[in-house]
Amino acid sequence: MAERTESGGTHEPARRDTYTAESLLAVAVEVFNRRGYDGTSMEHLSRAAGISKSSIYHHVRSKEELLRRAVGRALDGLFGSLEETGAREGRAVDRLEYVVRRTVEVLVAELPYVTLLLRVRGNTETERWALERRREFDHRVADLVKQAVAEGDLRSDLDARLATRLLFGMVNSLVEWYRPQGSAHGAAATAEELADTVTGLAFHGLRA
Amino acid sequence: MAERTESGGTHEPARRDTYTAESLLAVAVEVFNRRGYDGTSMEHLSRAAGISKSSIYHHVRSKEELLRRAVGRALDGLFGSLEETGAREGRAVDRLEYVVRRTVEVLVAELPYVTLLLRVRGNTETERWALERRREFDHRVADLVKQAVAEGDLRSDLDARLATRLLFGMVNSLVEWYRPQGSAHGAAATAEELADTVTGLAFHGLRA
Repeated sequence: MAERTESGGTHEPARRDTYTAESLLAVAVEVFNRRGYDGTSMEHLSRAAGISKSSIYHHVRSKEELLRRAVGRALDGLFGSLEETGAREGRAVDRLEYVVRRTVEVLVAELPYVTLLLRVRGNTETERWALERRREFDHRVADLVKQAVAEGDLRSDLDARLATRLLFGMVNSLVEWYRPQGSAHGAAATAEELADTVTGLAFHGLRA
Repeated sequence: MAERTESGGTHEPARRDTYTAESLLAVAVEVFNRRGYDGTSMEHLSRAAGISKSSIYHHVRSKEELLRRAVGRALDGLFGSLEETGAREGRAVDRLEYVVRRTVEVLVAELPYVTLLLRVRGNTETERWALERRREFDHRVADLVKQAVAEGDLRSDLDARLATRLLFGMVNSLVEWYRPQGSAHGAAATAEELADTVTGLAFHGLRA
């Protein structure tokens, strides 16, 4: 694990740059999530990584490139699940349940990256691209919902669009409270337990 | 409706103070939600309200007092629902469903105030008080869930704590995407339609 500091003075000696593109991205995403993307400067990233700004520029052209790589990683995970067999074959309701389950798993596996994606505001070109991709994902899921209603497998008394929003509101809330190691307020749940609870609640409801 | 501006120069003439405590609070909450509580100064509030800082101090002692009143209004709504007959009589599962329905209604009725409450971080005494009250509300709901499981009305194969988190993750997501007047991405739903969809999904599931 790379040694990191953010508290030191401006003249602290930079350590030797042993980062890979991936490990530097992990540091950047942690800082983006803590300070907000807009509130993060290259100076903040330099301090958090413990290397000079010119060393960072050796890896990436700009702060925005780090954002693009980070949200790209989250989006690749989400869209990747849509290409899997479980999302492409069978009845729409089962494909929908598969996608919801895989989305939970991607959220857990890529938690800081998806957290960043869900906080994107749209102030830069990269952010607007990320929002557009998110909308595309939502449309793909909404199509599954419509198809499942048409096939008679989803309740038709619920508004499909509202239900989709609520379903992903529930799933996306994970980034706010789920901590892989557990916390003072709750034991850790595995990705599988989470996915079971999400799909159980969403598709079959809480009532016995 | 009071005339408001935030773009004017620092020397623009202050308008006559026609605010009540409540209408000034509404302006403050809008600014808190837009800029973040930490990022809002009395100067920002003065510009948004179009009255001088000293006029604001005529209504409230501090920025923190505005926060306390605002989150207090949200908390009063939430805790108030726990005292209603539907939350106090009958089987636990029905009381739980009643509380979820009323929570949705309170969110819609007090949207900016609950939005602010859900964004509280814990940096000030008032914020820590609000977080403590939120935890108290969560415990009251968790007790209902446990009781409903004990009465055999909730599925026992789902982790009650996780399910409660997910349930409120879904409900609380409303503050991120629900707009009473609708938007480019969706028609407006009434509080009743929202509450029907939330309780239908959560208690009976999406499958037909």
